[in-house]
Amino acid sequence: MRKSVLSLAVLGTLAAFNLSGCQTTDNANAEVEAATTQPPNIIYMIGDGMGFEFISAYRYANSTLGADTLTPTVFDDLLVGAATTYPDDDTWVTDSAASATALATGVKSYNGAIGVDTEQHPQQTLMELARQHGWLTGAISTSQVTHATPASFFTHHPSRREYHAIADSLATPIAPGKWSFDVLLGGGYADFSRADKDWLPELREQGMTIITEFEQMDGLTRLPAMGLFAPVGLPHAIDDQPRLASMTTTALRLLEQQQREQQKPFALMIEGSQIDWCGHANDIACAIHEIEDFAQAIAVVREFMQRHPNTLLVITADHSTGGLTLGQGGEYAWHSDKVMRIQNSLQHLTTAMLEMPRSEWRDYLGPRLNLAFTEAEWDAVLSVEFAADSSTRTQQRQLGAVLVQLISEHTRTGWTTTGHTAVDVPILAEGPGADELRGYRDNTEIAKVLLELVK
Amino acid sequence: MRKSVLSLAVLGTLAAFNLSGCQTTDNANAEVEAATTQPPNIIYMIGDGMGFEFISAYRYANSTLGADTLTPTVFDDLLVGAATTYPDDDTWVTDSAASATALATGVKSYNGAIGVDTEQHPQQTLMELARQHGWLTGAISTSQVTHATPASFFTHHPSRREYHAIADSLATPIAPGKWSFDVLLGGGYADFSRADKDWLPELREQGMTIITEFEQMDGLTRLPAMGLFAPVGLPHAIDDQPRLASMTTTALRLLEQQQREQQKPFALMIEGSQIDWCGHANDIACAIHEIEDFAQAIAVVREFMQRHPNTLLVITADHSTGGLTLGQGGEYAWHSDKVMRIQNSLQHLTTAMLEMPRSEWRDYLGPRLNLAFTEAEWDAVLSVEFAADSSTRTQQRQLGAVLVQLISEHTRTGWTTTGHTAVDVPILAEGPGADELRGYRDNTEIAKVLLELVK
Repeated sequence: MRKSVLSLAVLGTLAAFNLSGCQTTDNANAEVEAATTQPPNIIYMIGDGMGFEFISAYRYANSTLGADTLTPTVFDDLLVGAATTYPDDDTWVTDSAASATALATGVKSYNGAIGVDTEQHPQQTLMELARQHGWLTGAISTSQVTHATPASFFTHHPSRREYHAIADSLATPIAPGKWSFDVLLGGGYADFSRADKDWLPELREQGMTIITEFEQMDGLTRLPAMGLFAPVGLPHAIDDQPRLASMTTTALRLLEQQQREQQKPFALMIEGSQIDWCGHANDIACAIHEIEDFAQAIAVVREFMQRHPNTLLVITADHSTGGLTLGQGGEYAWHSDKVMRIQNSLQHLTTAMLEMPRSEWRDYLGPRLNLAFTEAEWDAVLSVEFAADSSTRTQQRQLGAVLVQLISEHTRTGWTTTGHTAVDVPILAEGPGADELRGYRDNTEIAKVLLELVK
Repeated sequence: MRKSVLSLAVLGTLAAFNLSGCQTTDNANAEVEAATTQPPNIIYMIGDGMGFEFISAYRYANSTLGADTLTPTVFDDLLVGAATTYPDDDTWVTDSAASATALATGVKSYNGAIGVDTEQHPQQTLMELARQHGWLTGAISTSQVTHATPASFFTHHPSRREYHAIADSLATPIAPGKWSFDVLLGGGYADFSRADKDWLPELREQGMTIITEFEQMDGLTRLPAMGLFAPVGLPHAIDDQPRLASMTTTALRLLEQQQREQQKPFALMIEGSQIDWCGHANDIACAIHEIEDFAQAIAVVREFMQRHPNTLLVITADHSTGGLTLGQGGEYAWHSDKVMRIQNSLQHLTTAMLEMPRSEWRDYLGPRLNLAFTEAEWDAVLSVEFAADSSTRTQQRQLGAVLVQLISEHTRTGWTTTGHTAVDVPILAEGPGADELRGYRDNTEIAKVLLELVK
C-alpha cells in the first residue's frame, strides 16, 4: 500500500526527469521516500446530503448570468470521482448512519446503524484505527456531535436514535485523561448535560477543556477539548453566522500545535451537516448557504495544506437529499439570482410567522423572500388552513410546503422528496493518496483507502 | 500540446522503470515517441440528456437488491470528471444545440445555435478541423442525423429547427465525391428525401453509398456511406431492437478498413440521442433502455480500442433532462425491479391505447406496465377526460402525464421538469489524452482538448 501513496504528480515529475536522462534519479527517489515514510494527516470532509447537483447549484448561485465566466469555487480543482452510496438494506437509498458507517469503517450496514454491521457487530472505524496507531483524532459538525455522521466515526450503536448512549460513549475515557478524540466541536450540549447525567463537570475534572460559547474558541490552548455550541444542532448558516470555518480553524490550530510536540499525524472529520437538513426541508437558499459555510471550511483546510503538504484532503457526501434539480416545470431556467435574494431559512421564517398574527405575515415575509408573488400566491400563503388540533410542528410543515412550492416555481428549483435519493455523489480529493480515489467508487472503498493509510 | 497526449499510464510505467535504474530509458522513450507522433483516433460519445443520475439509475436497474455487489457497468472504469453545460444565453439551462456547439467547437452560444456563435458566425468544428487535416470523419445518432447534436459537428445554422437546410448542408459535397463526413448513420430519411428535393439519387450518383434498412449494414463495404434508417428518429430501444451498437460496429469496421489504406486518424461522434427524449417524457424505463443501448455501443468502442490503443474515447452528456432523481415522496426507496418490469415506452403505450377502445386499456396496459395499480389508480387512468377538440398529441400527453405520476409513485422515480436542468454532467474518458479531461471542466474545454489533438 505504501507505494500507492505516491501521487501521480510525483510520478509525472519523475517521468519528466527520465525523459531528459538519468541524472535526477537519486533526487527523485528521495522525493518518493519522503512521501512514503510519513503517513499523511487525513482531513475527511463530509457534505451531508451534498450530491453533485448541490455543487452545481452553489456554483451558479455564486456566479452572474451573462458574465464572461463562472465565479471560481473551492470545489473546482478537487473533483476526482463519484461514489455509490447504497446501504446493506432492503433499499438502494441510504440514510446518514449507514453511509457514515460505510465511510468510517469500509463496511456496509443497514439504515440507522452507527459503526456496526448488519449483525450489529461493532466495526473498527478510521478514528479508532488512527488512535491505535497513536494518531491525533477529531471531528467537527454543525449538527449535534452525537448525530449519525460524527457518531459513526467514534462509537458503535444499533440505532442512530440513541443520542444519550452515543454521548455516553463519546464521554467515556478510553484511558485516564484520554478519549477517543482529541477535539470535538459542534452542537449537542443537551445530550451531554442531561437530567439523568451531566458529563461536563466530570469531563473537566478528568482534564478535558469544554467550552459552550463560540467566542471561547480563540481561548482554547490545549487538547483534549470539546466545544458544544448549541443544545442540539447549530442555527442554519443563512440565519446566523458562518461557523464551520471558525471551528475548522480552531481544530487545525490545536492539532497543529499538538502535532509539533508529538510528531504524530492526525485524522479529522469535518461535517457540513445541515446541507442535508435544508435538503429535507426542500429549502434551496438554506442549502446554498450551508454549502458556502462548508466551502469556507474547505478553504481553511487548503490553506493549512499549503503549510502541511503531507495532508490528504478527501471530500464527499453520504448521499444526496431532497431530489434537488436545477430546472422545474418545463422551463429552461434556474433563477440563481432569486435564490440568493432569500434572506432566511424556511424553518426560521415559519417559526416566526407562527408566533405573530397572520395579519403581519405579508409584511414580514415580503422583504425576506424578495420574490414577486402574485396576489393569488399571497392568498395561498395567507389563507393556509390549519386543523384545529394541529401541533406547531405540523403547522410549520404545512406552511413550509406552501412556501416550498412557490419558491420552486419562482426560482425553478426542482425537488422530488423530503428524504434522500440513491444518486451517486462526488468524491473530491487532494494530497498524497488522492489518486487512489479516482473514478467511480463505492463509498466503502473511500474508507478502505484511508484505513490503508493509517495501517 | 503533443506532450500532453502522453497517458499517465505511460508516465507511470516510465516512473516505475526509473526507480529500478536507467537501462529502460531508450525503450521508454520509444514508447513515448510512438504515443506522440501519431495523433489518436477520436471517438466522442454523447449521451444526450445523460446526467450523473441517469448512470446511477442504469447501474441500480442492472443490479439486484440484496446481492453482494452491484453488477459492473461499462461506465465504471471511465469516469474522469464533470462538466458545466450553461449556454451563452439568458439562462443557466442549455438546450442540445448550444451544448453540442460548445462540445463541437469550444465556443458557447445561444440555445438553438448550430455551430454558430452568439453573433451567428460559423465556428470551426472538430470534424471540420479533422477534415482539413485529412482525417476520416463520421457520426452516428439514434435521432435523425439532422438533429441538433450531429448537426452541430458538421454544419452552421442559426436555428436547430432548420432541418431541411441542415440536410442540404450535410448533402452538399465539399469537393467532387467528398463530403464533410465519411460515414453518417441514424434517422432522418425524410429530411433528405423531400417533396422539394430528393438528395438520395444525386448523392448515389456522386459516389455515396446510401442504405435505408438496418439489415443492409453488413453489406456496406466502402466509404463514403450514409444510412438513414427511419424518416425521423429511430424507434425507442425499449420498443424495438438495440441499434447503437450495430451502427457503431459498422462505422468502426468501415473506418478501420479505410484507415488501413490511408494511414489517417478518424474522428467519430456517436450520440445516444433518445436518453434525452425519454427524459423529456419522464419515462424512466424508456431512459434505462436507451442507456443500455448507449452502453452496448461503448462496449463495442472499447473492444475496438483493444486492437487500436491509439484511440481516445471521450463520453459526456450535453445536459441532464427531466430533473431525474432516484427517490420520491419522502420514501427511502427506488424500485429498480419495478422499473425493469415495464415493457414499453410511454409513447408506444399511449399511441396504442388511443387507437383502441377504452374498454381494452386495462388488459393492454396491465401486462406491459406490470405495476400493481390499485382500483383507484386504474380509475384515474381509465377515466382520464379529453377535451372534445383535443388533438391526438394532446391526448397522448395527458394520458402520459397520468401514467408518469403513477409510475413515479410506484417506482419512487422523481422528475421535476419536462425540459432540461443546469446540473453538471459526467465526463468519462480513456486512451491517450484522457487525463487532460480530469476534474471539473466547462463543456467548451472538452472541445478545446480535442481540437488541440487534431491541430
